[in-house]
Amino acid sequence: MPAAASTPEPRLAVLGPGLLGGSLALAAKQDGAAAQVALWGRRQEIVEQILRQGIADTASSDLAEATAGASLIVLATPVEIMPALAAQLARLPLAPGTLITDVGSVKGSVVRQLEPLFAGTGTRFLGSHPMAGSEKTGLDAARADLFRSQNAACILTPTENTLPQDIERLTAFWQGIGCRVLPLMSPDQHDQEVARISHLPHLMAVLTTLAALRQDATPLRCAGNGFRDTTRIAAGDPGLWTGIISQNREAIIAALHDARDGLGELLEIIESLDEDRLRQFLSAAKRLRDLLPALTATEHAHPDC
Amino acid sequence: MPAAASTPEPRLAVLGPGLLGGSLALAAKQDGAAAQVALWGRRQEIVEQILRQGIADTASSDLAEATAGASLIVLATPVEIMPALAAQLARLPLAPGTLITDVGSVKGSVVRQLEPLFAGTGTRFLGSHPMAGSEKTGLDAARADLFRSQNAACILTPTENTLPQDIERLTAFWQGIGCRVLPLMSPDQHDQEVARISHLPHLMAVLTTLAALRQDATPLRCAGNGFRDTTRIAAGDPGLWTGIISQNREAIIAALHDARDGLGELLEIIESLDEDRLRQFLSAAKRLRDLLPALTATEHAHPDC
Repeated sequence: MPAAASTPEPRLAVLGPGLLGGSLALAAKQDGAAAQVALWGRRQEIVEQILRQGIADTASSDLAEATAGASLIVLATPVEIMPALAAQLARLPLAPGTLITDVGSVKGSVVRQLEPLFAGTGTRFLGSHPMAGSEKTGLDAARADLFRSQNAACILTPTENTLPQDIERLTAFWQGIGCRVLPLMSPDQHDQEVARISHLPHLMAVLTTLAALRQDATPLRCAGNGFRDTTRIAAGDPGLWTGIISQNREAIIAALHDARDGLGELLEIIESLDEDRLRQFLSAAKRLRDLLPALTATEHAHPDC
Repeated sequence: MPAAASTPEPRLAVLGPGLLGGSLALAAKQDGAAAQVALWGRRQEIVEQILRQGIADTASSDLAEATAGASLIVLATPVEIMPALAAQLARLPLAPGTLITDVGSVKGSVVRQLEPLFAGTGTRFLGSHPMAGSEKTGLDAARADLFRSQNAACILTPTENTLPQDIERLTAFWQGIGCRVLPLMSPDQHDQEVARISHLPHLMAVLTTLAALRQDATPLRCAGNGFRDTTRIAAGDPGLWTGIISQNREAIIAALHDARDGLGELLEIIESLDEDRLRQFLSAAKRLRDLLPALTATEHAHPDC
């Protein structure tokens, strides 16, 4: 189904064998975006699972071995682990021209910490955020079509130090596994937009679940698809999301303040029995939600986080 | 696919040719839950569409004509219209034993207003809430498998006046079109539970949409399936939902107060940088959300409201 990337990466090294890392390894191989794929995992039993299931051409728990000869290295660990892992990476004898990127949901803190590590080494860092995923986690949930089936948006966040050819190369790579690469954003612009469209909805799903069921879970028996969809991402990994939220605090706090203001406004409308204002309030949300393009059934069957 | 209902209703009259009324007419016919199906709509062009598309055996904009000889009458209009429509209905010469029900998302106000209208007429009212639907509305969105594909929960809300045989009969009818009939609830118990599991999530989806996009809709370009699912029901009909919310105000206000408290707690956790408490907060929601049984692909493809 997918066309091969225009110029496949000779050797891709993916660091982190979770849902995203595993899916990335599978996709890059299947879609021809990389000629060879290596996958690094910390634990030996994961390395064995990778090899047994053929998720990558090679796998290792040794960072130097996994990244030897890599043309493109993708960090696919939780964001709070990336700085220490990248520092190890920067001490390795990587080939000149090696491009390093990541899949983190936060870009400001990641780019600020990772980019300087590679300055002057002949290798370069450029942040990516492929917006695919699932409330499921781990290698067992990895799928070669994770990105393509979700028609996932992917955001590159260059800085003043980024080379144009690296943007082109990374754009081709993500497109090669089925992502829609969005217009470039600064790391901070990324964090602002993603706080609103991803981090806020995650926390609202959490709040909805708790307000619905924390006192008494009986109403769960009445749950329909409305509750199911509205709260799906609240089943996401708490550890992963604690890291994401902690690293994008300011933008998330601003979005939550707006949600709190909206909730106050809505309560006042309902308490004052003002049906006209209630209809206007609901209509304002509908108009905004209706801007989202319709979804194909295929995409809907593979939800992201 | 569906088994015929044990004892089909000889003649079903559905009042209101919207998504639910139209789907009910189609389902009752296709699944053999009623031998004959009549559909009442206020506007003549809808009546013509019903007949042209074969959505019911007969259709009329005349209430007496549509309900003549009916054994079961289902009100499928917005809830705020039901009392006036039921009052008209109660003045008609309905056959003794005719059972009247509705599909309203609110039961306290509906049952309190409708049940007394039929007392002493030889006909009886018993409230129902089949929890199926979609953010789409209107007859064009009607589908024979709306209830079955969603494995929709259906709640009957008897009172001290309800006859046991009416509960049995209505249970068989809803099961006959593919609903899961839940344990009986009082109208007020229904309204409490549904406020938490349906009305609150609807309003939270509205608040999420507004907090994400009201100031600036740019982040929409980054939307993934998380935002899509979390806010889907915010595209529902504002008029319909204004009626529902207005008639279940107290329970909804209580649920929104809990959401506001949860939001305050979450903001305090994030502002104080307490990662342990944040992880616990997210984990508490995950544990509750994980109680919801997994969904089949078929069900997921047909979202309800």
